[in-house]
Amino acid sequence: MKKNKNPTACVIIIGNEILSGRTLDTNKNYLCKELTSNGVDVIESRVIKDDVKKIISVINEVRKKYTYIFTTGGIGPTHDDVTSIAIAKAFKVNLVKNTKALKILKKFYSSNMLPLNEAREKMALIPKGAELLHNPITKAAGFRMMNVYVMAGIPEIMEAMFKNIIKKIKCGTPEVSRTILFNIPESNIADCLSKVQKKFIEVEIGSYPFMKKEKRGVNVVLRSKEKDKLKKAEIEIKKMIKEL
Amino acid sequence: MKKNKNPTACVIIIGNEILSGRTLDTNKNYLCKELTSNGVDVIESRVIKDDVKKIISVINEVRKKYTYIFTTGGIGPTHDDVTSIAIAKAFKVNLVKNTKALKILKKFYSSNMLPLNEAREKMALIPKGAELLHNPITKAAGFRMMNVYVMAGIPEIMEAMFKNIIKKIKCGTPEVSRTILFNIPESNIADCLSKVQKKFIEVEIGSYPFMKKEKRGVNVVLRSKEKDKLKKAEIEIKKMIKEL
Repeated sequence: MKKNKNPTACVIIIGNEILSGRTLDTNKNYLCKELTSNGVDVIESRVIKDDVKKIISVINEVRKKYTYIFTTGGIGPTHDDVTSIAIAKAFKVNLVKNTKALKILKKFYSSNMLPLNEAREKMALIPKGAELLHNPITKAAGFRMMNVYVMAGIPEIMEAMFKNIIKKIKCGTPEVSRTILFNIPESNIADCLSKVQKKFIEVEIGSYPFMKKEKRGVNVVLRSKEKDKLKKAEIEIKKMIKEL
Repeated sequence: MKKNKNPTACVIIIGNEILSGRTLDTNKNYLCKELTSNGVDVIESRVIKDDVKKIISVINEVRKKYTYIFTTGGIGPTHDDVTSIAIAKAFKVNLVKNTKALKILKKFYSSNMLPLNEAREKMALIPKGAELLHNPITKAAGFRMMNVYVMAGIPEIMEAMFKNIIKKIKCGTPEVSRTILFNIPESNIADCLSKVQKKFIEVEIGSYPFMKKEKRGVNVVLRSKEKDKLKKAEIEIKKMIKEL
């Protein structure tokens, strides 16, 4: 159906605080939005605990399925940060003190008059063979092992890291998207949408109902790599719904 | 380590709109929070597309691993709602017109002077053998197949459905939780936390750094089923950090 396939991605959020409900997961939304708008199709996302065994098994499952894997969380200085060791184990390499990462940390902490204690040095432990991912904010680097990009969990730092990553990776053709709002229940227009979907297979038509107090409505979202087809589908939907 | 094990759960969010980044996933956070506070441990969560094959394979994988599976999304009237057919296929049963579900819909739409069109009738198609899950808002039911609870994607409806479910399922012992805020970088206290964690294995100590503009701080979250141990760990952390 799709002529030139886009690269695919899986977003892995690592953190007990997301699964306990303590923290609202906003990193996934940021990454999904950025990847989609750069022509990288996010096929799935997972949230898993800060658990070495679980991280190993998930990473080794998904890295074979998708072009890119992006993880957030678990690369800090504390005892519950276990992502780096887990990634090293997943790739069967050692976790080693990375000279470059250590140098960056030393410079940062000395300029802030802080000692490079054991916990801070831990952040320079990187799987052997990994490429460092620059962290312009707190300097503790993320890293890339093959197609797995390992980023920090703090949104500001993750976003800063990702802004560098997205410049370097191979992206695809972004889809054009168009949202049409109808202030009627979704079930009124389901039949029209289904007919237009069958006619325009190059356009993905999504129907997203919502409630605002007692009022109900639906956002119809059209997505396609083919602008002309999308425009035609949009006109047809509007025409059909007008005639209801 | 844990004396009486809590039931486990996996939350599956179904919807292209989450993976494209169009919609912020708030259902997961609601479910994780509610389940955790009722003593059900959420072990993982996934976001997958409105894709029949994918839903089948994920459901059949996770339903064997966890006590409960909760899904949201894809049970509406439109062409892109494919969760019900996928669940039927996963359980190798037919998707049948459920008399009770149909009766509820008929009553609802006739009282609103609306016809029960084909799209609305589609919402009465339920996997054979499933138990209906009451939807007090728009009446189109969710359903339970074995340990899989299939709910709507609209947050207000999902929450109303879940409020009934949580009353009926077997829950566990909720953990007590305590958050301590420190306005210092996480790496200053990593060593203390690690020492206290080793001493109190019944307490899960999580360290969640944050940034607010230029300011950095850390929320230390203690969780345990044993209130006394949690209290002791809290005192110890505060004491150690005071002495830094």
